[in-house]
Amino acid sequence: MSIEEKVAAVLAPWVHVAKQADVVVLIGVSGGVDSMVLFDVLEHLRHTLVFRLVACHVHHGLRGTEADRDARAVQNFALQRHVEFRMMHVDVLQNRLPGESEEMAARRLRYEALKNVADEYESCILVTAHHANDQVETMLDRILRGTGPSGLRAMREVRPIGRHILVRPLLTLYKNDLIQYARTRNLPFVEDSSNADLRYRRNRIRRELLPYLRTSFNPKVDHALLQLGRIVADEDQYLTGVAREHMLACTRRTHDGTLIAREDLLRLPIALQRRVIKLVLEGIDESVTWQYAEIENLLELVRSEKTRRMMLPHDWMVFTTVDFLHIGRFASRGDSEEFPWNPFPLDWSSFFSFLRFHWQVEAKVVKRPIAYPTSHFEAFFARSREECFIFRPWRVGDRIEPLGMKGSKLVSDLFTEGKVERVLRPYYPLLTLGDEILWVPGLCRSRSHLVDSKTEFVQQIVFRV
Amino acid sequence: MSIEEKVAAVLAPWVHVAKQADVVVLIGVSGGVDSMVLFDVLEHLRHTLVFRLVACHVHHGLRGTEADRDARAVQNFALQRHVEFRMMHVDVLQNRLPGESEEMAARRLRYEALKNVADEYESCILVTAHHANDQVETMLDRILRGTGPSGLRAMREVRPIGRHILVRPLLTLYKNDLIQYARTRNLPFVEDSSNADLRYRRNRIRRELLPYLRTSFNPKVDHALLQLGRIVADEDQYLTGVAREHMLACTRRTHDGTLIAREDLLRLPIALQRRVIKLVLEGIDESVTWQYAEIENLLELVRSEKTRRMMLPHDWMVFTTVDFLHIGRFASRGDSEEFPWNPFPLDWSSFFSFLRFHWQVEAKVVKRPIAYPTSHFEAFFARSREECFIFRPWRVGDRIEPLGMKGSKLVSDLFTEGKVERVLRPYYPLLTLGDEILWVPGLCRSRSHLVDSKTEFVQQIVFRV
Repeated sequence: MSIEEKVAAVLAPWVHVAKQADVVVLIGVSGGVDSMVLFDVLEHLRHTLVFRLVACHVHHGLRGTEADRDARAVQNFALQRHVEFRMMHVDVLQNRLPGESEEMAARRLRYEALKNVADEYESCILVTAHHANDQVETMLDRILRGTGPSGLRAMREVRPIGRHILVRPLLTLYKNDLIQYARTRNLPFVEDSSNADLRYRRNRIRRELLPYLRTSFNPKVDHALLQLGRIVADEDQYLTGVAREHMLACTRRTHDGTLIAREDLLRLPIALQRRVIKLVLEGIDESVTWQYAEIENLLELVRSEKTRRMMLPHDWMVFTTVDFLHIGRFASRGDSEEFPWNPFPLDWSSFFSFLRFHWQVEAKVVKRPIAYPTSHFEAFFARSREECFIFRPWRVGDRIEPLGMKGSKLVSDLFTEGKVERVLRPYYPLLTLGDEILWVPGLCRSRSHLVDSKTEFVQQIVFRV
Repeated sequence: MSIEEKVAAVLAPWVHVAKQADVVVLIGVSGGVDSMVLFDVLEHLRHTLVFRLVACHVHHGLRGTEADRDARAVQNFALQRHVEFRMMHVDVLQNRLPGESEEMAARRLRYEALKNVADEYESCILVTAHHANDQVETMLDRILRGTGPSGLRAMREVRPIGRHILVRPLLTLYKNDLIQYARTRNLPFVEDSSNADLRYRRNRIRRELLPYLRTSFNPKVDHALLQLGRIVADEDQYLTGVAREHMLACTRRTHDGTLIAREDLLRLPIALQRRVIKLVLEGIDESVTWQYAEIENLLELVRSEKTRRMMLPHDWMVFTTVDFLHIGRFASRGDSEEFPWNPFPLDWSSFFSFLRFHWQVEAKVVKRPIAYPTSHFEAFFARSREECFIFRPWRVGDRIEPLGMKGSKLVSDLFTEGKVERVLRPYYPLLTLGDEILWVPGLCRSRSHLVDSKTEFVQQIVFRV
């Protein structure tokens, strides 16, 4: 199969699926040999497969005049082939995040810029020139840094990116084949001088490590790694699917985090326990790269018979109760300025927690109170179908009409009597109905919504403290 | 945890499980620092954990006087500590198999020798001094050679070996810790001069590759690989378990191989398809290391709509029919000199095949013949509970009493009339009962065991050709 046939085979189904009169294929072109070959191939294919080709060069504001030269080279080529051309400028040095290397920042900003261009179209096919050698280098990089099996998974040929798709049609081709093609077709391309800079880890892998491995251990080491990556990708996909099913079965989302049923989790094979935890962590915060050590620590917490707590990166926190592991954000803020956390309606039957207080709450509908509440942490309310009970944080000036008293009382006075620390008060949950406060859990119940013989639905709420 | 505590923790449960008055712990001792440290530790532990320690040194007949020196060093140490000592001699150069490196042969023969000593006891705990660095080197070796995820799996701390178990209590400890221990305890140990020989791949990994990776990429690369190995080991175990269940559901063993139901297999996720095929291949021949390429080829065969056949290493052969993939040995011989394949009894209900003829056979019990046989490849027999119908290959002089004729006929004459090639005749299956031939499938049915109105059990046999 020629390179052109290969690219056509990968791309064609997606061009056809789009079924628009004017499918946009957006290619990121650095000007290097990989992207220029793909550019050339796509420029031919646009007539046979029928799509609108847009080329985009991202200028990183690094490497001074050399970068300007590269940008001009791509622009000229686009002009010459009558291809729409977009130039995007990003400033890597200005926009580098803490802990991010220059390479990582450049990569992130490049993708963002490409995605911004893509977003100008209703939907488009974003195409990059990653090839087999990139795959091999990425895998080696991850193996050496430390990774789990998911990290060994090869890049996928096609994946969604926002409302668009990202296609990498050269993934099974080696760089040598691309260079050969560029020579035969007499294509212009530029050489990024930083590719020779051995201070960059990636360049050391490409220019030192891989040649050494090929000479000293296995001339086909690239092939060996690609094969491993393909198998791992399939197994990873399968395991993720299985783990997701189990995750749905043994976790519950709450307003401020996720609950994992310890017993359900521990019944799974260890391989799945680890993957469920990983999915939960990724689900609560995609922006964090969760480490193996954190997953292992969480599993130890789940296995431990004691109830404990632990801090995670980015203010995430974990604590265990007898039945659950609760992962949530200690310092999470509500959407409004007014509240430190978002008020939420009380479902008739539900289970949730107030993380800051280490309280777990169970609500259910009962026929009659089974017994009198044994503490202020348990209460029964007459509740009609239409009534929406809300939990919200305390505000200055809140008053309650206590059961067994006349008139009302400031909740802040209850806090003082109950020795609730000042810093915790803004987080304290109150059960409310409209403007009325029904209950300050642990401290005081109002005389509203009492249960009597005519009550149809009895809402029971128990705080496990 | 000290080294001694670590070893005790790993070993203790197995010593206790054995529950014998006189548990034998057999240690293989090369004389190098790893095994001498373990020897020393076990020599202490034998009093507290209570077991009988036996040390065994395997002399490989390589490295001339240096090897003799090593053997003596171990023997002296054993003598000094009053530990039972065994010396085993193997001849690596004489016993090397084709395609085997000197290292591989030495390793195989060493294990065989240790297992021979172990077999002198009813059951024993075989102990080796593999440590964390060995793990790392093995993983790197496999990654570079080319492996699937199973190959990335770290060595297990405990595994069965024949009727014994193999325990590797030092697996989580690094070599440096062992050297430290040896120094502190002033232990004698020998240095194998071949360890410095960079012609050996293993030594290049230890002395060149790993130091380079630590310096240039990640000082904790060993830790990174061990962690990967542990996760992969758990996931591999899980996937193997799942695949085994599916394998049992979609395969059937026959007298000469294995049948895989194509549709059942193709319904599985690709990750499991691959693992089921791998398990089947390992099941039919453990001695072969099946390659990824062979598994992929088999999967392609299963997916292909055409029926095809393919040769595998070691005379194994595969062919497909509409419903099945059949893996078997083309040239398999029977145990006796007399037959090219082993006769086998016909189960009342069964499904099997004659590989050389590409025939699949279905046997079942029916109430009455549903219809008259439409060809000589289908037949009905009256069969009583006690009668053992046997399929066996043709022998010179075999005669049958054909239905609709008087007297008997030579089967060889039937072959000639039916144009069965001479080379195939010795493999041709005949259905027999005692000395009587009931059926030459495809050619002639005998007048014996006909079905009539008094027949209780009707055995139907259909050849799909």
